[in-house]
Amino acid sequence: MGDLKLNHSVENGSVSMLNSLDHEEFRRQGHMMIDFIADYNQNIEIYPVRSQVKPGGGGGVMYASTCEAFLCTLIAIREQKLSVIGRENLGNLVVYCSDQTHFSLKNSVQIAGISLENIRPIVTTKSDNFQLCPESLRLAIISDLEAGLIPLYLCCTVGTTSSTAVDPLGPFCDVAKEYGIWVHVDAAYAGGTCICAEFRHFLDGIEGANSFSFNAHKWLFTTFDCCCLWGKHPSALISALSTNPEILNNKATESKPVVDYKDWQMALSQRFRALKLWLVLRSYGVTGLRDFIRGHVKIAKHFESLLAGDERFEVVFPTNFAMVSFRVSPLAIPNNEDVNEFNRNLLESVNASSGAYMVHAVVRGVYVIRLAVGPTLTEYQHVNKAFKLVQDHANALLCTYQKHAWQM
Amino acid sequence: MGDLKLNHSVENGSVSMLNSLDHEEFRRQGHMMIDFIADYNQNIEIYPVRSQVKPGGGGGVMYASTCEAFLCTLIAIREQKLSVIGRENLGNLVVYCSDQTHFSLKNSVQIAGISLENIRPIVTTKSDNFQLCPESLRLAIISDLEAGLIPLYLCCTVGTTSSTAVDPLGPFCDVAKEYGIWVHVDAAYAGGTCICAEFRHFLDGIEGANSFSFNAHKWLFTTFDCCCLWGKHPSALISALSTNPEILNNKATESKPVVDYKDWQMALSQRFRALKLWLVLRSYGVTGLRDFIRGHVKIAKHFESLLAGDERFEVVFPTNFAMVSFRVSPLAIPNNEDVNEFNRNLLESVNASSGAYMVHAVVRGVYVIRLAVGPTLTEYQHVNKAFKLVQDHANALLCTYQKHAWQM
Repeated sequence: MGDLKLNHSVENGSVSMLNSLDHEEFRRQGHMMIDFIADYNQNIEIYPVRSQVKPGGGGGVMYASTCEAFLCTLIAIREQKLSVIGRENLGNLVVYCSDQTHFSLKNSVQIAGISLENIRPIVTTKSDNFQLCPESLRLAIISDLEAGLIPLYLCCTVGTTSSTAVDPLGPFCDVAKEYGIWVHVDAAYAGGTCICAEFRHFLDGIEGANSFSFNAHKWLFTTFDCCCLWGKHPSALISALSTNPEILNNKATESKPVVDYKDWQMALSQRFRALKLWLVLRSYGVTGLRDFIRGHVKIAKHFESLLAGDERFEVVFPTNFAMVSFRVSPLAIPNNEDVNEFNRNLLESVNASSGAYMVHAVVRGVYVIRLAVGPTLTEYQHVNKAFKLVQDHANALLCTYQKHAWQM
Repeated sequence: MGDLKLNHSVENGSVSMLNSLDHEEFRRQGHMMIDFIADYNQNIEIYPVRSQVKPGGGGGVMYASTCEAFLCTLIAIREQKLSVIGRENLGNLVVYCSDQTHFSLKNSVQIAGISLENIRPIVTTKSDNFQLCPESLRLAIISDLEAGLIPLYLCCTVGTTSSTAVDPLGPFCDVAKEYGIWVHVDAAYAGGTCICAEFRHFLDGIEGANSFSFNAHKWLFTTFDCCCLWGKHPSALISALSTNPEILNNKATESKPVVDYKDWQMALSQRFRALKLWLVLRSYGVTGLRDFIRGHVKIAKHFESLLAGDERFEVVFPTNFAMVSFRVSPLAIPNNEDVNEFNRNLLESVNASSGAYMVHAVVRGVYVIRLAVGPTLTEYQHVNKAFKLVQDHANALLCTYQKHAWQM
């Protein structure tokens, strides 16, 4: 194990940690997370930074949230594109995503001054498990080009919010490349799983993407806020976001031994987020982190098996990670009652009990209840209790509905 | 002293603290900070929020940085304006500031998609102590209108970065009002001083502004990050930045007992910044905080008097707050040597000693060294030592320069 060195940026207290992975390796194999964590496990030396940020080389930066990752990458490609085709074309830029993409992309698009009319949420289908379909993307692009618009940016998701669907990255990157579109991969929730070999296939094809972000504060045991972004072309970020004010000129900046992260982000300053992530990595090690992730997935599968043992429930989407989407089946609900309304009442009743907290989603008109396993301290006993709670509240509610049906 | 109640937003953990001030009072008197702190001193109850956010009423939110305050207010007025005049006019919007405005405004303007060619940094003069001049602003606006451009936003500063100059808010707000321009007051550094009556006059005229931000992490003893923004029209922020995704629908949101701060900011989530500010307010009280601010100003004046006692030094700008801008006078430097170069060498030599840390600025070609008193633990002894350090390094440097002069 090497020496423990923490080189941080003089200006804004950001540790260079995220640059310690071998970006060539990342681009070749498309499996950055595993390299990143493995690097921590095998060699705790945190390399000097600047050598990693060479022209054409990739790089990493930590943001507060996925919104900031969306915004900064959008601005990077927006400025790159407009510098070629002229600023007057801002109104013609088009952003592609799926109808399952996190809603905060819309906010970032609006902030970036791109018309909301120019977002193309491509419709996904249940038969495709709500994954984006590359052919639908191509058709949308062709139609926009014919209308004189300019394709700019595509957001693919690894683990969507509503159903943890995974867009197939390879085919998308291939289509996007043909049209010069920047591909951002949002793996906010599921990115952390890729420290485990069995989940790495979800990143297959990522070598064609331009940027990738995941939230260590979602499922890598780090406190909010900690969104990690890797970009293949930090120079695009830097050329859109850099400032060079006189008051910040100093020898360290001029001689470039440090990365000025202010040039990679919206704000001048940022909190020392890398330190807390570093402490998480040091505390658990890669083995500990993998055990956590795998443990959570097993606990989620266990919850799924409990649901399977009671035929009144149905699991609505495949459990790709550690989120289980379920509902009381229409077959179990007394005649003529609205199944969505029933499940909404069930969730409100469960949450009001304070025994567990779950969140809903509505996908293609279907109201589902989502149980996500993620916190450090969650154990089998907790989901057993949660299942019992859901069962009890479903029993009580079914009883009320049946009474109501008799009285009709 | 009332009950201690901490009402926080269910969604994002933001306490409603900043809404506890009486906005009518703020707008009438333009002295929000004093009301805010006084409210904490006299009555620790934190009021229910929603009642404070009525149509036409003001409101407050906490951001990470001034950059975010600039960006969110710019987006608010940009969207308001474009919804009236059409999105195709984005390229015609103009942002006004002074040549002393913090450089991060430029970044926010760029992110907002407004052309950097449409920023008007109005030239300030030494005779005006580098304050913006309302007549110059009017001339710039008229010239832009004649060129078919659309005045949008004006940034005034209370305590500029380079020289702590204060733009006279009243006359600017009057000019801006005539042309329908949003006025943002950036008091990042100096805003905290307005908890003391003797500094409140710097906010005179603020009743005409649309938004005001200051950084509690700069000079109100709160750790980074903690930028407080008040807006007269949160509805403008909300209509530009709000989202209404299905997954966040819940009874609390529908029945409006809480403010959804996600609709006031760029990101969906935010850290619970209010808690740390609240702890600062509770720990020191208004008396303690005023004592700190006044103490720092006295310590800065003391440093100024030390400089005055050595005729080789000169104080370059008025010490409005607790930042002293000084340099070794051209008269003290041996013939034909560059006075800026000398002072740059002096600062680098002082900082390299690790005995004190100061930052430079260049204002209208004049290189100045800036000593700012602000941290909680700074005492007279520290600036005495700092002055001794500056003197010693100046002596050594003058000695070298004199030797050099003899050898010529």
